[in-house]
Amino acid sequence: MLPNISQRFSQETSGLDDLFTLSTQKEVISFAAGYPATDLFPKKQLDNAFLKRTNKKTQQFYQYGSVLGADNLRSEILTKIALTKPQITLDNIMLTQGAQQAISLLAELFLDSGDGVVVEGPTYIGALEAFKLKQPTFHEVNLKSDGLDLDQLENIVKQYQIKLVYTIPNFQNPTGCCLSLAKRKRLAKLASRYNFLVIEDDPYRHLRYAGEDLPSIKSFDETGNVVSLGSLSKILSPALRLGWLIADQALIKQLANLRLALDCQPSNVICEMVEQYLSDNDLKAHLTQLNQAYQAKKETMVQCLKKYLPSQCQFTNPQGGFFIWVTLPKHIDSHQVLLKNKMVAFIESQGLFVVSQQKNHMRLNFSNVSDKQIKKGCQALGNCIKEML
Amino acid sequence: MLPNISQRFSQETSGLDDLFTLSTQKEVISFAAGYPATDLFPKKQLDNAFLKRTNKKTQQFYQYGSVLGADNLRSEILTKIALTKPQITLDNIMLTQGAQQAISLLAELFLDSGDGVVVEGPTYIGALEAFKLKQPTFHEVNLKSDGLDLDQLENIVKQYQIKLVYTIPNFQNPTGCCLSLAKRKRLAKLASRYNFLVIEDDPYRHLRYAGEDLPSIKSFDETGNVVSLGSLSKILSPALRLGWLIADQALIKQLANLRLALDCQPSNVICEMVEQYLSDNDLKAHLTQLNQAYQAKKETMVQCLKKYLPSQCQFTNPQGGFFIWVTLPKHIDSHQVLLKNKMVAFIESQGLFVVSQQKNHMRLNFSNVSDKQIKKGCQALGNCIKEML
Repeated sequence: MLPNISQRFSQETSGLDDLFTLSTQKEVISFAAGYPATDLFPKKQLDNAFLKRTNKKTQQFYQYGSVLGADNLRSEILTKIALTKPQITLDNIMLTQGAQQAISLLAELFLDSGDGVVVEGPTYIGALEAFKLKQPTFHEVNLKSDGLDLDQLENIVKQYQIKLVYTIPNFQNPTGCCLSLAKRKRLAKLASRYNFLVIEDDPYRHLRYAGEDLPSIKSFDETGNVVSLGSLSKILSPALRLGWLIADQALIKQLANLRLALDCQPSNVICEMVEQYLSDNDLKAHLTQLNQAYQAKKETMVQCLKKYLPSQCQFTNPQGGFFIWVTLPKHIDSHQVLLKNKMVAFIESQGLFVVSQQKNHMRLNFSNVSDKQIKKGCQALGNCIKEML
Repeated sequence: MLPNISQRFSQETSGLDDLFTLSTQKEVISFAAGYPATDLFPKKQLDNAFLKRTNKKTQQFYQYGSVLGADNLRSEILTKIALTKPQITLDNIMLTQGAQQAISLLAELFLDSGDGVVVEGPTYIGALEAFKLKQPTFHEVNLKSDGLDLDQLENIVKQYQIKLVYTIPNFQNPTGCCLSLAKRKRLAKLASRYNFLVIEDDPYRHLRYAGEDLPSIKSFDETGNVVSLGSLSKILSPALRLGWLIADQALIKQLANLRLALDCQPSNVICEMVEQYLSDNDLKAHLTQLNQAYQAKKETMVQCLKKYLPSQCQFTNPQGGFFIWVTLPKHIDSHQVLLKNKMVAFIESQGLFVVSQQKNHMRLNFSNVSDKQIKKGCQALGNCIKEML
């Protein structure tokens, strides 16, 4: 007989597990996971970066690197991608195994059982899974079209001791909304005033198809109360497993010590290769190409939803990112839509609202499906929902 | 002001941090870290594997993979490297970010504060750091020349509720000793009888320069109470960050769900490339080459220690692995040797004995230093110790 596992765990399967399973079943059209388009990876440039760098570094290419990641790579990321503010230096950034590891490192460092965590309702299920390992007390804040309801947030932080506030400011997963400029400023101030840490998870910042870039929440942070996360998974390649975390130097030091004990360090092979890629290529041109392609896919999905969804449904038309958020009539459970319709996978909403458990929404991903699949899938969903009405 | 970090953490720096810092200071001869020899990486073959596989897989090479790692790669590892027993199938193996992540996943899944963990005295500092995150109650079992003192272990598991027993059966880090065949059988039986989990951490199994291979503890496990860990870091390249964990299917499922929440999955680029390497190359021939080179380095260090250390010191002469263990006279503190001698870095012993905190030993690594450095370093250490006597 095995010893008991920690009392922190139930025997339930993970929401992420279901998500990855859904996304790989070949017979279904998957609007479920958030995979970037396979045909848009800059394969030739990445291959070349590998070759050039392994020849340059010779044997050292395959040796251990450092826990933070090489200085030059972190510098390239700071100047070309993270775009925070001039005061942010190499001492403020560490690489992580995707942004997912950045979230779990912060959860590990800060949270004891019962500690207060604020999330958006709805939010990214992977963040919820990472926080849940620490058994925190969750508070859910409503999302408006301009992001988090900050009045509601302020009431919560006045009433309860909150350690972490998790937000996705750009093209939020799953709703696609953006946090307004005024709210970014106010959120940074609230964090400082009420001594909580804002986790600004920002993987979609550069996937803007329309409208103007907004400065990061971190750029308004005067007191170190904002940590900003980024990732190459959506804009370059998820197989690199390369994310980063920008924070005060003392916090970086603590998180780096933690990472040493958890998995030592990032892959030096990957770090070297990505540094070469960023140094040799025009990332902006690549992003322009991505955004044109994703905008077209999004337009196709918006047109199909207009055409096929019954009029009682609402859906967003985001200016960037990977997701459209559909709101069904209150009495329709998206889980039932999943079960009834056997052709299209998507993310049902219940698990994304950690407190309110709202059931009448669907997250639809358009980034890695063809126009034909989008059309066929939207039609099938529309028919299914019409039957249920 | 930031919120408080978890009460689980002190502000102390990590032992691993010191270790990596020591190993990268250029002015010192480092016998400290356990880096494999940089000039022995099969660079050309690894480069070729990358190229061949990225051409074969085309764009898919850069897409998400799976949380367990690709079936074919896990199968190659099972048949060519892990060598456990026929009943072990693909359902029993998951890839990890180095063996370090395997240890931290097991700690995360099983341990609550105060739970009993048995480690060898001395043991691998990275395992201690991973366990310490969970604030367990440590028990230390003496090492004899044939490994763990199992009578002492049986007394402990009779008296206390123990969840995990961590052991490095081959060329133990830091002492270089091997667990005898009889003890491997008995340890598997004890685990089954007293319901604890054995973590068999086995990164050095294939680095045997002399003597006969011993079957793994896992091969004597009838009840799923042994989990076996392996890694490519020492035998192929640490920059791949590729380890694995072999366990019962139900446990693999739980650990995979955990990994999803922590960092999602291994790098598909790395998995694809390594699968190609293992399929195209003769790993045994590579290991033979490694072992000849490491044996020569070890012999050089043994000869130098004989020549330069005062006769009051003892040291091991291991049949494999990366380390020689030096025992100084009782009153000499290896930390003082580190401070006094400014030329040679090594691992002092106090932190490796989690309970007894013995100070009079040194771990010397010979795998990534030249003969000249070995000679110069041993001479300096010998002189320093002679002065202290």
